[in-house]
Amino acid sequence: MKLIRFGNPGEEKPGLLLEDGRRIDASAFGSDYDEKFFGGDGLERLAAWAKANAATAPTVSAETRLGPCVARPSKIICIGLNYVDHAKESGMPIPAEPIVFFKATSAIVGPNDNVVIPRNSKKTDWEVELAFVIGKKASYVSEADAMSHVAGYCVHNDYSEREWQLERGGQWVKGKSCDTFAPIGPFLATSDEIPDPQNLKLWLKLNGKTIQNSSTAQMIFGVQKLVSYLSQFMSLLPGDIITTGTPPGVGLGFKPEPVFMKPGDVIELGVEGLGVQGQTAVAA
Amino acid sequence: MKLIRFGNPGEEKPGLLLEDGRRIDASAFGSDYDEKFFGGDGLERLAAWAKANAATAPTVSAETRLGPCVARPSKIICIGLNYVDHAKESGMPIPAEPIVFFKATSAIVGPNDNVVIPRNSKKTDWEVELAFVIGKKASYVSEADAMSHVAGYCVHNDYSEREWQLERGGQWVKGKSCDTFAPIGPFLATSDEIPDPQNLKLWLKLNGKTIQNSSTAQMIFGVQKLVSYLSQFMSLLPGDIITTGTPPGVGLGFKPEPVFMKPGDVIELGVEGLGVQGQTAVAA
Repeated sequence: MKLIRFGNPGEEKPGLLLEDGRRIDASAFGSDYDEKFFGGDGLERLAAWAKANAATAPTVSAETRLGPCVARPSKIICIGLNYVDHAKESGMPIPAEPIVFFKATSAIVGPNDNVVIPRNSKKTDWEVELAFVIGKKASYVSEADAMSHVAGYCVHNDYSEREWQLERGGQWVKGKSCDTFAPIGPFLATSDEIPDPQNLKLWLKLNGKTIQNSSTAQMIFGVQKLVSYLSQFMSLLPGDIITTGTPPGVGLGFKPEPVFMKPGDVIELGVEGLGVQGQTAVAA
Repeated sequence: MKLIRFGNPGEEKPGLLLEDGRRIDASAFGSDYDEKFFGGDGLERLAAWAKANAATAPTVSAETRLGPCVARPSKIICIGLNYVDHAKESGMPIPAEPIVFFKATSAIVGPNDNVVIPRNSKKTDWEVELAFVIGKKASYVSEADAMSHVAGYCVHNDYSEREWQLERGGQWVKGKSCDTFAPIGPFLATSDEIPDPQNLKLWLKLNGKTIQNSSTAQMIFGVQKLVSYLSQFMSLLPGDIITTGTPPGVGLGFKPEPVFMKPGDVIELGVEGLGVQGQTAVAA
């Protein structure tokens, strides 16, 4: 299944993207795609509901805004420098174990919402990433059991203010958590649709030009390892979003000079099997 | 007012601690102390409810477990090295601007719940802190307007696994987010009860011996500055918890050797006007 959420910000309703491309309103199913949904038998109930009701459910028009494909989770956990070439372009050593940081959940927006360049930002940058969503609580999970805790996958653009992340002292989270810095979607593909998350092409275009173009096969620490690793440090709750790092091609790494975003810039990005996002940059 | 939440973990109900020491059940008020409560006129409505109903409301017995005094927020933002002497004992430079990091909200527990020493932890440590809770959304707030965004104050123990925070590469969050590492409470005192948050004694005892003993007057960046500063980087949402750093006396700073927690250790801590917490350490 492909889960969508649609409607005005903060008032999103659950829906589905069907095989034939039709988007349907699943409000009648009766629950949002949140911690309770994923932690219970929500996906099974939704599949049963869709089997019985998809054909007759109301269509969501093409003009309707898509929201983030999951309701606000307890946390977004991000993995840094998780592609060998991106670590190199950032001038950072290849990590010996996953680099873990957080992003505020207040940064989450829909996949095609504007990205707001924060006040006083000089270095707003992009990062196409494969994200996954936890399906059942994970605490001290083995690698062998890890994949059973994954509900599905989606596209995420891990927007980053590089000065605030790297040059203002302390921890990265200051440059990662600005409002609109976490577009999620367009849909959550359930795990059965993505048999191998470590073999997906991913790409990003700035104003029509492809500048990130890689494969999740290049990841240092894959989804299976990350679930197990993170669960040694904290409980991963149903609905939590984990985003797996970005390949080369971020603005910080451009030669001879870094390139950062300005109002009017158009970003498009996608991950194989998970659809395409597009954001236009605006000033705060 | 002093807001409490009581009952079994995950099933807490709202309550109040009255001036005469009686704890009452405020379930009949009809809403939990969450984002919607703080972001709307929840505190005003609660005050009116209490005026009319406190005398006749059911008493919460002394044996009843206290939960965290606010419902799970969108985020816990922590300030590191925010007392001059603690920065020195940690061997870190005095920060030029606030050191910002996050703690997983899945770490939140009640003020007297056991603290679980995680599997494979060798360096679990304590940190008594003054925390405050956001009362209305804060984005690009001036210092002059900052205090109007604070709903109230509570005690927080910012438990920290020092090896995972400092010696395992990457960011601090790995050592800050373990389950039970964020006891909150016993109560949230509304802002009117704490006219000067920068002049409160705070202390912590390990097995009956006082090892942290300072005043929030020693903070480098106070509550007013922090609200304004953080709101330049991200929206602070109603109910969000911000915790302001710890004074000297953490186990990491002990001489001649650091001291860390072992099962059976008893921690007590308090902040002037905000009550006392107590945790017993258990193995995972």
